Amino acid sequence: MNQQSETNKSLNVGLIQQKHLGSRAHNLDYTAEQIKHLAKQDCNLVILQELHGSAYFCQTENTDNFDQAEAIEGPTFNYLSALAKQYKIVIVGSIFEKRAPGLHHNTAIVIERDGSLAGYYRKMHIPDDPGYYEKFYFTPGDYQENTQGYIPISTSIGKLGVMVCWDQWFPEAARLMTLAGADILIYPTAIGWDTNDSASEQKMQLEAWITIQRSHAIANGIPLISCNRTGIEADPSGQSQGIHFWGNSFISGPQGEILLQANANEAATINTTINLSHSEKVRQNWPFLRDRRIDSYQQLFQRFLK
Amino acid sequence: MNQQSETNKSLNVGLIQQKHLGSRAHNLDYTAEQIKHLAKQDCNLVILQELHGSAYFCQTENTDNFDQAEAIEGPTFNYLSALAKQYKIVIVGSIFEKRAPGLHHNTAIVIERDGSLAGYYRKMHIPDDPGYYEKFYFTPGDYQENTQGYIPISTSIGKLGVMVCWDQWFPEAARLMTLAGADILIYPTAIGWDTNDSASEQKMQLEAWITIQRSHAIANGIPLISCNRTGIEADPSGQSQGIHFWGNSFISGPQGEILLQANANEAATINTTINLSHSEKVRQNWPFLRDRRIDSYQQLFQRFLK
Repeated sequence: MNQQSETNKSLNVGLIQQKHLGSRAHNLDYTAEQIKHLAKQDCNLVILQELHGSAYFCQTENTDNFDQAEAIEGPTFNYLSALAKQYKIVIVGSIFEKRAPGLHHNTAIVIERDGSLAGYYRKMHIPDDPGYYEKFYFTPGDYQENTQGYIPISTSIGKLGVMVCWDQWFPEAARLMTLAGADILIYPTAIGWDTNDSASEQKMQLEAWITIQRSHAIANGIPLISCNRTGIEADPSGQSQGIHFWGNSFISGPQGEILLQANANEAATINTTINLSHSEKVRQNWPFLRDRRIDSYQQLFQRFLK
Repeated sequence: MNQQSETNKSLNVGLIQQKHLGSRAHNLDYTAEQIKHLAKQDCNLVILQELHGSAYFCQTENTDNFDQAEAIEGPTFNYLSALAKQYKIVIVGSIFEKRAPGLHHNTAIVIERDGSLAGYYRKMHIPDDPGYYEKFYFTPGDYQENTQGYIPISTSIGKLGVMVCWDQWFPEAARLMTLAGADILIYPTAIGWDTNDSASEQKMQLEAWITIQRSHAIANGIPLISCNRTGIEADPSGQSQGIHFWGNSFISGPQGEILLQANANEAATINTTINLSHSEKVRQNWPFLRDRRIDSYQQLFQRFLK
């Protein structure tokens, strides 16, 4: 493929926003049906939501949940790999990774259209707040300059800047993924409302979540895909009313323009075409990368300055 | 003032979005009237737009414009200082600073309620694109760890994270100002539409501008004020149709919620009350500062990673 066709290429990207259907088998079967649908729409790339194979089990701290963890090239990979190969489509999946006994990650896996593992990303920023006890389950991803951390995953369709959920709140992460050459930012996500919050607080939180992700597209001049869960999942402890995952998965262009957005409460499989060559034109007009004051950013890797 | 009253304090903040009225005297007289109005509304703080004393002269590269430049404690400071003292109000102004012969900055000045200079900020990121030839006029602000650059300006009403216009597109700048202890982010601004752009492009640009600034409030859990110019200013060279400054000055809370927003095409003097203690609660619920992976951000001060 020559340079010209490289820079003019377009991607037909799809995402699958789904509900937890009660079991791993039901969830994956549903995912497979939807991937088949997207393949019929000529999608090149499918994004799945965070931990799509299971319930969002982090509502409580329970060691029994570690039994669900698997290797990167484990059962979920094998299942998705067969679909990727069958439909010749790149898939971004999400797993609860068991790296070693007692050592787990929240990991996105990227599968090539030939079914091979293109790469993986271990969630770098781990949340912990009521209902999202992720620090109990997941070790943060490793960082090693140029080899581990914010490394885009090279695929036949481009360099995918895959991160996971809580990462989406950190402009630093999106920037580093961009500087490392990502063509697009991608966030499998699991976020929702606390049903005790007021309607205005819920609206504000949802808007903030959309806004900060759109801002990563804008700051970096590349498109962005965010795929979130939907549906209400009960709290196994019964201490809360569970989480109402807010859906609203969306695809944004490189100026933060929303190209496509799912609703809040229903499963949704949606797709659209992104012209990757448009990113270069946007960056020419909005040359933020040209003007970064890199001589003045050293203190970004400090916790606080007093 | 004890710790308790410090953290419970609220600010009545105002901003003045204005048109260029053809001369420095007309502009400053108008500003004075509006400051008087805001003082009657019991404002503690007034934000003026970028280069409020003059036309936005950067539409062409013309050495004659350097004659407008002034010292930090020059005529504009003196004029605003008298108003600050008269109305016991903190003012954020904006000047074309002459630092030395042939050495100029785009500088925000902060004036205490007693009329003294609280501090100044020299624009760190300088744009250059058609109609905004700022690299011709302004040297970027100096950086020196903990002393120059993203240093909040301490005032009787809080630590003001004042930056200027193009800085608003860089998440790094907002983060550094936050880490240095800013209570609020403030952007005097001059940005507008190219009238040759389509309506949809114009809408997208305005939305991107609002979105990225709201994202700084969200990422950092503090409120934000952006004060932009309005009105159409002709291109002295006649080569373009000039700039249609898009107004839309706004005040955002710490979750990116818009508290108040001016319109696009009219001068507007608006104010609202911000409860600064709310920021702490927001940060407790959205603990982004807790979870920054500072061990993994070193490459943010590189230009690109390949």
